[in-house]
Amino acid sequence: MVLRLSRHSRMAPLLISRRFQSSFLPAPPFTIKDLNESTLEAKYAVRGKIPIRADELRSEIDNNPSHGLPYDRIISANIGNPQQLDQKPLSWYRQVLSLIQYPPLISKIEKLDPSVREHLYPSDTVERARKLLKSTGSVGAYSHSQGDAGIRKSVANFIHKRDGYPSDPSDIFLTGGASAAVSYLIQVLSCSEKSGFLIPIPQYPLYTASIALNNAVPIGYFLNEEKQWSTDPEAIRDLIAENKEKGIAIKALVIINPGNPTGAILKEQDIVELVNIAAEHGIVLIADEVYQENVFHGEFISVKRVLAKLLEQDHELYKNVQLASLHSTSKGVSGECGQRGGYMELVGFTREVRDIIFKLASINLCSVVSGQALVELMINPPKEGDASYQLYHHETLTIHKDLEKRALLLYEAFTKMADVSCQKPQGAMYLFPRLDFSREAYPALYKKADEMNLTIDELYCTDLLEHTGICCVPGNGFGQAPGTAHLRTTFLPPGTEWISSWAAFHEKFVAHYKQ
Amino acid sequence: MVLRLSRHSRMAPLLISRRFQSSFLPAPPFTIKDLNESTLEAKYAVRGKIPIRADELRSEIDNNPSHGLPYDRIISANIGNPQQLDQKPLSWYRQVLSLIQYPPLISKIEKLDPSVREHLYPSDTVERARKLLKSTGSVGAYSHSQGDAGIRKSVANFIHKRDGYPSDPSDIFLTGGASAAVSYLIQVLSCSEKSGFLIPIPQYPLYTASIALNNAVPIGYFLNEEKQWSTDPEAIRDLIAENKEKGIAIKALVIINPGNPTGAILKEQDIVELVNIAAEHGIVLIADEVYQENVFHGEFISVKRVLAKLLEQDHELYKNVQLASLHSTSKGVSGECGQRGGYMELVGFTREVRDIIFKLASINLCSVVSGQALVELMINPPKEGDASYQLYHHETLTIHKDLEKRALLLYEAFTKMADVSCQKPQGAMYLFPRLDFSREAYPALYKKADEMNLTIDELYCTDLLEHTGICCVPGNGFGQAPGTAHLRTTFLPPGTEWISSWAAFHEKFVAHYKQ
Repeated sequence: MVLRLSRHSRMAPLLISRRFQSSFLPAPPFTIKDLNESTLEAKYAVRGKIPIRADELRSEIDNNPSHGLPYDRIISANIGNPQQLDQKPLSWYRQVLSLIQYPPLISKIEKLDPSVREHLYPSDTVERARKLLKSTGSVGAYSHSQGDAGIRKSVANFIHKRDGYPSDPSDIFLTGGASAAVSYLIQVLSCSEKSGFLIPIPQYPLYTASIALNNAVPIGYFLNEEKQWSTDPEAIRDLIAENKEKGIAIKALVIINPGNPTGAILKEQDIVELVNIAAEHGIVLIADEVYQENVFHGEFISVKRVLAKLLEQDHELYKNVQLASLHSTSKGVSGECGQRGGYMELVGFTREVRDIIFKLASINLCSVVSGQALVELMINPPKEGDASYQLYHHETLTIHKDLEKRALLLYEAFTKMADVSCQKPQGAMYLFPRLDFSREAYPALYKKADEMNLTIDELYCTDLLEHTGICCVPGNGFGQAPGTAHLRTTFLPPGTEWISSWAAFHEKFVAHYKQ
Repeated sequence: MVLRLSRHSRMAPLLISRRFQSSFLPAPPFTIKDLNESTLEAKYAVRGKIPIRADELRSEIDNNPSHGLPYDRIISANIGNPQQLDQKPLSWYRQVLSLIQYPPLISKIEKLDPSVREHLYPSDTVERARKLLKSTGSVGAYSHSQGDAGIRKSVANFIHKRDGYPSDPSDIFLTGGASAAVSYLIQVLSCSEKSGFLIPIPQYPLYTASIALNNAVPIGYFLNEEKQWSTDPEAIRDLIAENKEKGIAIKALVIINPGNPTGAILKEQDIVELVNIAAEHGIVLIADEVYQENVFHGEFISVKRVLAKLLEQDHELYKNVQLASLHSTSKGVSGECGQRGGYMELVGFTREVRDIIFKLASINLCSVVSGQALVELMINPPKEGDASYQLYHHETLTIHKDLEKRALLLYEAFTKMADVSCQKPQGAMYLFPRLDFSREAYPALYKKADEMNLTIDELYCTDLLEHTGICCVPGNGFGQAPGTAHLRTTFLPPGTEWISSWAAFHEKFVAHYKQ
């Protein structure tokens, strides 16, 4: 027996004879026309044309010292990816994760001098690693397709504590970020090209992309920019009536709260109205609540909490409401995007329907087990008195304050820019300022955009990138009211220099194009 | 600013007034009839009815000391999940992964006494962690959607070394296990309900499940059991002709080598024939090579290597062949299923087609970054002379020998069972023995199966589970020639006791049903 023959020993020559090659003619090349059309049509602007151009510029800067660009680095403001920038991971998370990746370390460090040991791993990190390992076993083993049972129980406790209403561990699915949950839900609800999904406009483009991949119909409901991007229930009801008339079966209503890309936070009354719409029309609610920890103004209220309260008040009226709520370890003060942790809670789904979602999860085997463990660490952090508490508290508070500070700085910069308006940030990681460049005031801009076959926001973001190295995403990647132009930027990049260079660019841009 | 208000402070009461609840009637409940039909039809036996029953029995054993079952544990032989059983993770992998999860540990251990330090982390693990961190940055950041560029370069080098032919890093996609790659490929190639996929029978049920989810047509080509589960190119050509006549556009030919569930290894000549078919008919080759390290007899030859050789001999004839090869950290001697690492190499795809696959990967953001790092550790292990080499060599050799031993022991047990035949294992982690229970010799068995609405293999596996606690999967979950009955079992469970209890069960089963 030779282990890994091909890697460690000389390869045996291949004995292919020529007689196999003359008996047929080759087929023509395989092209894009041979592909699934829905995969051609799906769009995902967050990693689209402008970020791809930013990658090219970045590689030019890295590989060519005499690149001649007027900047020395690319500012990635296109994606909520805090640890790509300067955000440090929380020590608590990483200490426990390192122990569960290498369990023999636990007994090895126990043999060290206590002062050395506590410096490496505070006692509660060791305890938590032990507890997690007892529940999951090796993180190298597939877990239950729905996720580890012990962690799902923890999630249910977290929800109970957060909302004041119980949650059932068998309703919890641990998923690879929230994206995997969105895919399962859209896939399972897309019955035909007449299945409709109500999504907020602007939206996070994962929704339109998933809907396109499943040949279903996106039905955008406009958020009210003037009223801090709030929802308008009457407009949603009108859309439902209108689409029902066209024969569209509306399957789900997507709520993103705190909002991406808007940074808005829904008020309790708004959520009640959305639950009422779901109850009346038999529409599944998909509550994307991944930014629930990123709150600067107002209070995050989960859709689950509102639904539970309404059920308490009138069980008959609300008993058929189905809600899927999503959370993730990628956002909040965690920012652990690359670890792919998240969960979905299904409320009010029948056992049969849940079983189908379970089957989809099974086909993907399981979500990454270290990411499942990270969910546990996020929802069940050190408590006052625990060895890790002080550091944890300090780190989370610093991140949170820092994000708030950056949000306000950037917001203030936008308020000072000519012909730009911006809603004050309440939460999440984004601003979605509007470019008020009217056709009357900016005829040369519209002429140039037409020539280049770009929209106003595309042209602005392209110019911004080329002149400053700042990469953000045109509003049309998220959807916007007709005739308006926006852009989405994160407020994650560190420092203020990039904000000044943006302001300087803007001034020149306006001076160049304004009549 | 209050951080995480809802978690740390008293919740504000919800102010829902009753006036919102009386203005509508509730919609009827949402049922399975409201779901996407293709999600109802997809089947995935590896985690299907029998494994779900095994879960129930396991929880009965755990929670009820007087359970009355004739066994005290469930033997999970249904899934290739080595670390769920007794396989220990390789120290090399886990040491590096623990360092990249908690990078401050690197400088902390450097302050320790050298003898203590080396005991915790051999020097090459620290070096590799540094190198990986330099490439990926924080594992908590999203990577490039296609995977970290440095790791993709490593993968291309590994393939070059393995096959003797170069590989291009821009053709490599790092994926969450091989499953994610299979999903992308089937999705992108499924144009309509007339898109066909040639899959081996028996197959790994991920293929039929993905094909069903995309409303495409699975076209099974039978492997030749009598000839060690080899392929029959003439039969495949006949199937192509037959299906073309029916208007089916055949999009891809799936090859699983080493075979799952058959444990067979394809010979060079067989692979040449399959490449010829692809070249002649313009069919994409999907080579699932996740068991390439699990080889006991014969030699693993990659499809890439054969194609590269053929291209060298006759470029014109083979230049349009498209091949996607898959590998994973879940199998081999790694067995790191829960870490979700893997890669796909695309050969001969046009830039345009690759861009569409890239877009699908982008919609999922990125595969888990620690899993990407694990790919690097798998393909680029310690070399002779490195601090970790001896332990790494010992651990991998032990796992490999142990798997081979278990495979042979189980194989021998099957050869001794009445009315069972089994091909000698060559690789992978499975045996796929045939139950030769003819209707003539076993009339009572067929009668009972008919009554219970089960196939012979389902009845056998159900009885095996109920009587011994051994969980394996009926052959019909993988596909089998009409009129035959098989089962798939891994040879991963430790010890020989379970094999003896299986043999004893079999004897009783035959005695009970045979005329």
